[in-house]
Amino acid sequence: MKTMKRRRRKNIIKPGLPPGTLVHVGEKKTEETIITVMAYNEETFSAERVGDAASCRERLSEEKFLWINVDGIHDLQLLESFGQHFGIHPLVLEDICNTAQRPKIEDHGEYLYMVLKMVDYDEKQKAIDMEQVSLILMPRCVITFQEKPGDVFEPVRNRLRGGKGRIRKAGPDYLAYALLDAVVDRYFLLLEKLGDEVEALEEKILADPGSETVRELHGLKREMIFLRRAAWPMREIVARLERGGSELVDSETEVYLRDLYDHAVQVIDGIETLRDLLSGLLDIYLSSVSNRMNEVMKVLTIIATIFIPLTFIAGVYGMNFSYMPELEIPWAYPAVWAVMVLLALGMVVFFRKKKWL
Amino acid sequence: MKTMKRRRRKNIIKPGLPPGTLVHVGEKKTEETIITVMAYNEETFSAERVGDAASCRERLSEEKFLWINVDGIHDLQLLESFGQHFGIHPLVLEDICNTAQRPKIEDHGEYLYMVLKMVDYDEKQKAIDMEQVSLILMPRCVITFQEKPGDVFEPVRNRLRGGKGRIRKAGPDYLAYALLDAVVDRYFLLLEKLGDEVEALEEKILADPGSETVRELHGLKREMIFLRRAAWPMREIVARLERGGSELVDSETEVYLRDLYDHAVQVIDGIETLRDLLSGLLDIYLSSVSNRMNEVMKVLTIIATIFIPLTFIAGVYGMNFSYMPELEIPWAYPAVWAVMVLLALGMVVFFRKKKWL
Amino acid sequence: MKTMKRRRRKNIIKPGLPPGTLVHVGEKKTEETIITVMAYNEETFSAERVGDAASCRERLSEEKFLWINVDGIHDLQLLESFGQHFGIHPLVLEDICNTAQRPKIEDHGEYLYMVLKMVDYDEKQKAIDMEQVSLILMPRCVITFQEKPGDVFEPVRNRLRGGKGRIRKAGPDYLAYALLDAVVDRYFLLLEKLGDEVEALEEKILADPGSETVRELHGLKREMIFLRRAAWPMREIVARLERGGSELVDSETEVYLRDLYDHAVQVIDGIETLRDLLSGLLDIYLSSVSNRMNEVMKVLTIIATIFIPLTFIAGVYGMNFSYMPELEIPWAYPAVWAVMVLLALGMVVFFRKKKWL
Amino acid sequence: MKTMKRRRRKNIIKPGLPPGTLVHVGEKKTEETIITVMAYNEETFSAERVGDAASCRERLSEEKFLWINVDGIHDLQLLESFGQHFGIHPLVLEDICNTAQRPKIEDHGEYLYMVLKMVDYDEKQKAIDMEQVSLILMPRCVITFQEKPGDVFEPVRNRLRGGKGRIRKAGPDYLAYALLDAVVDRYFLLLEKLGDEVEALEEKILADPGSETVRELHGLKREMIFLRRAAWPMREIVARLERGGSELVDSETEVYLRDLYDHAVQVIDGIETLRDLLSGLLDIYLSSVSNRMNEVMKVLTIIATIFIPLTFIAGVYGMNFSYMPELEIPWAYPAVWAVMVLLALGMVVFFRKKKWL
Amino acid sequence: MKTMKRRRRKNIIKPGLPPGTLVHVGEKKTEETIITVMAYNEETFSAERVGDAASCRERLSEEKFLWINVDGIHDLQLLESFGQHFGIHPLVLEDICNTAQRPKIEDHGEYLYMVLKMVDYDEKQKAIDMEQVSLILMPRCVITFQEKPGDVFEPVRNRLRGGKGRIRKAGPDYLAYALLDAVVDRYFLLLEKLGDEVEALEEKILADPGSETVRELHGLKREMIFLRRAAWPMREIVARLERGGSELVDSETEVYLRDLYDHAVQVIDGIETLRDLLSGLLDIYLSSVSNRMNEVMKVLTIIATIFIPLTFIAGVYGMNFSYMPELEIPWAYPAVWAVMVLLALGMVVFFRKKKWL
Repeated sequence: MKTMKRRRRKNIIKPGLPPGTLVHVGEKKTEETIITVMAYNEETFSAERVGDAASCRERLSEEKFLWINVDGIHDLQLLESFGQHFGIHPLVLEDICNTAQRPKIEDHGEYLYMVLKMVDYDEKQKAIDMEQVSLILMPRCVITFQEKPGDVFEPVRNRLRGGKGRIRKAGPDYLAYALLDAVVDRYFLLLEKLGDEVEALEEKILADPGSETVRELHGLKREMIFLRRAAWPMREIVARLERGGSELVDSETEVYLRDLYDHAVQVIDGIETLRDLLSGLLDIYLSSVSNRMNEVMKVLTIIATIFIPLTFIAGVYGMNFSYMPELEIPWAYPAVWAVMVLLALGMVVFFRKKKWL
Repeated sequence: MKTMKRRRRKNIIKPGLPPGTLVHVGEKKTEETIITVMAYNEETFSAERVGDAASCRERLSEEKFLWINVDGIHDLQLLESFGQHFGIHPLVLEDICNTAQRPKIEDHGEYLYMVLKMVDYDEKQKAIDMEQVSLILMPRCVITFQEKPGDVFEPVRNRLRGGKGRIRKAGPDYLAYALLDAVVDRYFLLLEKLGDEVEALEEKILADPGSETVRELHGLKREMIFLRRAAWPMREIVARLERGGSELVDSETEVYLRDLYDHAVQVIDGIETLRDLLSGLLDIYLSSVSNRMNEVMKVLTIIATIFIPLTFIAGVYGMNFSYMPELEIPWAYPAVWAVMVLLALGMVVFFRKKKWL
Repeated sequence: MKTMKRRRRKNIIKPGLPPGTLVHVGEKKTEETIITVMAYNEETFSAERVGDAASCRERLSEEKFLWINVDGIHDLQLLESFGQHFGIHPLVLEDICNTAQRPKIEDHGEYLYMVLKMVDYDEKQKAIDMEQVSLILMPRCVITFQEKPGDVFEPVRNRLRGGKGRIRKAGPDYLAYALLDAVVDRYFLLLEKLGDEVEALEEKILADPGSETVRELHGLKREMIFLRRAAWPMREIVARLERGGSELVDSETEVYLRDLYDHAVQVIDGIETLRDLLSGLLDIYLSSVSNRMNEVMKVLTIIATIFIPLTFIAGVYGMNFSYMPELEIPWAYPAVWAVMVLLALGMVVFFRKKKWL
Repeated sequence: MKTMKRRRRKNIIKPGLPPGTLVHVGEKKTEETIITVMAYNEETFSAERVGDAASCRERLSEEKFLWINVDGIHDLQLLESFGQHFGIHPLVLEDICNTAQRPKIEDHGEYLYMVLKMVDYDEKQKAIDMEQVSLILMPRCVITFQEKPGDVFEPVRNRLRGGKGRIRKAGPDYLAYALLDAVVDRYFLLLEKLGDEVEALEEKILADPGSETVRELHGLKREMIFLRRAAWPMREIVARLERGGSELVDSETEVYLRDLYDHAVQVIDGIETLRDLLSGLLDIYLSSVSNRMNEVMKVLTIIATIFIPLTFIAGVYGMNFSYMPELEIPWAYPAVWAVMVLLALGMVVFFRKKKWL
Repeated sequence: MKTMKRRRRKNIIKPGLPPGTLVHVGEKKTEETIITVMAYNEETFSAERVGDAASCRERLSEEKFLWINVDGIHDLQLLESFGQHFGIHPLVLEDICNTAQRPKIEDHGEYLYMVLKMVDYDEKQKAIDMEQVSLILMPRCVITFQEKPGDVFEPVRNRLRGGKGRIRKAGPDYLAYALLDAVVDRYFLLLEKLGDEVEALEEKILADPGSETVRELHGLKREMIFLRRAAWPMREIVARLERGGSELVDSETEVYLRDLYDHAVQVIDGIETLRDLLSGLLDIYLSSVSNRMNEVMKVLTIIATIFIPLTFIAGVYGMNFSYMPELEIPWAYPAVWAVMVLLALGMVVFFRKKKWL
């Protein structure tokens, strides 16, 4: 129940405010805002924590590429100062601090702005955790905004630090690609876990369907609805990044973006497969339930159909009429037993013929 | 029931009348027609109530931009005089006073004509309230027509009055954008409320599904049908406004329109999400009902299957045959009890094995 | 039942005949064929009944526009003579007299040929009545073919006669528009009536669903299938008329055609809305039925579960064993009553807990 | 059951054989292969049976057009010799003798190759009979291949023999059109018969739904699946023939092809209508069944609910306690009767209130 | 259960690794990696097993075409050395050893890279076996990678060895076509087997639907979900190979690729047909189950409705009231019998009228 509330609440809107007014929409996931500036080129790599946008601006140079990572998006003044120092449009800043965004890409000429949803699986709540990640790609710099400090970009940082591979040689477009790739990889991990849930649910439904399985099934379907809406736009984002013809993206990075595009398609494929499997599960659940009902009804019918007529016969000879000649016959009692047994056997034969037994 | 009637009745048509004949279609939501003219430029802002279209025309000048707001669309003569003074095509006038319009945009060269549906949630009737808003964008002037006086444009008016932000500096295209934005924002508020309803309904269905929950579910689904038809065309309208290449729209406004487009897409996304959630609810409702039926059947079957055979045995020894040797045996009565208890226990074991108990 | 037969029968085909062979397909809805020639220009209007195509041909002149209306399409010789006098392709003539046509538009260079379905609601049969209307637009003349005399074009005739508005000033393309508009308007009237039926059905289903409501629902759904197939192509027809670039259509008429296009879209929208509402009705019908079944089952279960054990107890003390010590105890009878009452109360409490009572 | 087997078996494939290897796939529907050569021009028409491809080749001349019809496609040597004499690509020959083809058109420059499915209704088996027809259109010649001798092309032959209409004057493209038209006409006849079946089934389901009606419904739906897959590609084939820009198709034939295209669309429309009707039938079937179940349950519940309490009362006074004061009261027996009658009446009133009676 | 686990597990991803890092994803299906180099031209053919990529590279020459087949994709060093010797991009190598790929084609300028899923039917597990096949088409060479040694390419090898047909004369593009064709042919065999399963299941469901049939049905549907995702992209692959305009594909091969495209479409058609049939089966299953339930209920109702009132009557005359005048009447007992028989007959007549008997 909780997840849905959380996710839906994000749609909060501020009617009446002029466009470009910064309002933080979403829950505040961290107290402090942490800004980390990583400067790197083929030879060196350094990372330091800074306090404001101005100090980030100062570190921009011709010799090094910068990656500025901001954890925490509720500090609206900080965002505004980023806007001033890096020339970011107020509407973009508004989108960064509004976590109800749909994933999208916008080409603002001098920079590209991307919004993505980072996913995680909350094992306890059996719900998908979504966090909004904004990424701004500039000629010599990448700025990322996360809702709270997290480890999704950790591998990329390690690769930068290690200095192996293309990552230190290539420009910020390759860094942006690496970050997007890290986000998309999370979806695979999530699909893995959801797949396990679906599988466990399938076994439960085939073994013993109950009303709590329907709730679980419903919960999973609902999660898929939200996951789908987060994942589908990613394909479009990567495709436009690759084919968009922005000067910010080097042609050598395109082959990597094409690979990323394939990953995005694979994620969508995986989501659709899970959705199809879940639809199939509802079908088997419903047929299991009606099968069980059928079985229950058969037991009732067999018992009732055998014993109701017999009880009637016993009732007949329990009547107190003065004149009931059968009652006096010595072999009448065993005869009635015989009749009753034959009747019961006849019923059993009838049910066998009907394949109920 | 009422909502549907109201909404559907709007489709009234006047067969036989030549095109361009003004006929007011829809319920009359206000008695009086109120015309407000707001004139503004970077320095000044003034708002006054005027009586007719001619006085509006007079206020057009090179120095100021005008926003003419008309509340009430049933005064056909007034509409006609607007047509004459501002050069509006009769077919456009016909559409303004026919509230059965589908949202659309029309480029008439010298002006752009847009129709939108403004939404509100009637908490008492649990129904969506729709009102038609027409907007005409001219080189130095915006004219809006509403069915009744309302507060949806109030924030825009306040911004104009306050004079902060771009709104007083930019031309009527930006004003049109701001007005459209105010209309779209209403959809977010509505989705918020509908989301609450869906959530409450979900809890109800999971806790205790009854026939009134089906009706509520059905009512919500019906509202979604109408909401969807009102919202989908908005995306197209904003897209055509942005990319339509009309000279009335300044290139600087385009970035705002793109933002508005994103909002429209988000509204549609939200509607589709609610629709998916509602479909899921019907599924859990139906499986809840069949689960309950199953439970009812099991109780009946358990009781009947245990007691019907026992009643038969009791019936047998209630028969009045003269020759029933068992009746004379002293331990026969306790023996029969024993048999009956064993039979009942056997049944219980059988039901346990079947997992019915 | 009848409607379907009628509608489906129209698909009769004449295998083996060469293309262009005229065969009247459909039921003969009128005995006599009536040809009316209306000649008009800005000053005058005259209408007269003529006997053959040749007399129609004679009336063509540079000063006046002609509208030739033919009621009755089974007179194949007449059609052929129209073909000869007005240069109409045999395949077009074949389509005119075959009422199984799908609505379409064909540009034959010198003339445009359109087929539409005119709809009416047969209140008694609760079925949609469809009639095929063919319209040929030529440089100075419009020819219309209807299956039987009807009043759908009456308002257009009256406007021609009255001479107000554009209709007498504009050429035959405007007349064609006016005729198409009259046909489309009929769909609104029909949707109005179908909407009433749906609403009445909804109330019936919510109040007391029975098997006859399913039949009504099914009947309405079937009508919608046919209506949909008739209405969807209209949008395409008007769009191609507007954007087709035919020289027969004046650019001044285009704004009217755009308006007509909006109407066609609105008709389709209305049909889809009704279809969605009908689908929703089936859902509530099915859940009503299973709700009722549930209620029936509960009553049965409550009664049976309370009384079957009690009857068993009564049966036990109805046995005739010689040695049944309880029978001799004076307070045994009231004690048994007490047990039975307690048992019944226990059951009632159990059902309350289960929320069945 | 049989139909499905037959139809599905056609998908037999010969893995491992090089492309262009001729293998007859499908059942052998005729023993003998019959080749008929029809030579015609505006003046004359002759038809003769020949023995091999070479003799067909000889008959090609500048003065006459040829139509070569081959009944029977299992004689692979004959097909190969056709390939050699008429320059047909081995892959085309492979497709001609493989009846598992999907309908398609291929432009091989010097000739056009088309595959279509000819349909017939097997009244006894209540199944659709499909036969593959291949058609090769060459500059002066049309070659057709059928699985077995049949009468679908008989009307075309008669028209050729009769010499009326365009058929003898126009070239082989018109002949190809006429043959395609004959194939498409068959679909109308089939739809007619299927429509009758659907109608009969509808009446049966409304009157007395049983398990055999479900089977019939299922059978019809299955036939529709196959029919649909055969019919949909036809539209594409005719469209590409018309607009494909092949030099083999004269511009004068295009108007006929456009007409044929309309027919193909009409066939598809008819199929979709039947499918929609069949889906609706499943819905009424299911609601009929649950309605009937409801009715059965009501009867059971009414009887049981009235008599189970009464039987309990009778059981109470059948007990053998020594001390049962009521038994001695003279008016007790009639009083018990009165109570029982009142109880029964009360139940009846209750059921009336619930609208079960 | 097992299949699903296997198939889903393939989606394993290696978050945090830089792109182009080779990681073998999937189960290791063979211990040893086998490299076979086949060199051929119009005159000669030779096949030999080599140990590493370098020896493959050496065999490249102007006189012969090479086909290098690698069975086993877990030897990452080998893959890397292939990458170095043949100039294959690291991302391609990464895809080759990751069996979770979606089928796709990539044009890398100097070579074309294709991934396909080879299918097989595991009769014992009733599951589809999927294996990933990668194919690299270079100017004078084709390299194929399979997960384990298999016989799918055996027929192609035999044709190469035999030297008949085009295969030895044409270049590597034709070889690539032949290999793709071999993969597609497998789908036909699989569809054949799945078709048999569907047919057997249909007979089972019509004869005696049980809960195990639902599981089978569900299993088949699940297999179809995965099969569909494997087959749909094939159409796109072949289409892009044919129309992609790569210089690696000779124009003479295009007619073969078009044929292959038709086969791919036919495979998809077959899959969709099976899916439609399976959906239909679920419908008949559900209606069979509710039919059976209906039948069970009718038997119960008939028995209960006949005997419950009779038992009541017997119960009445089993009461022990001192004053029950009927008990003394000599003909009362036969009279009661008569009443009971009449009542039973009345019920039978009632059921006949209701068509329950």
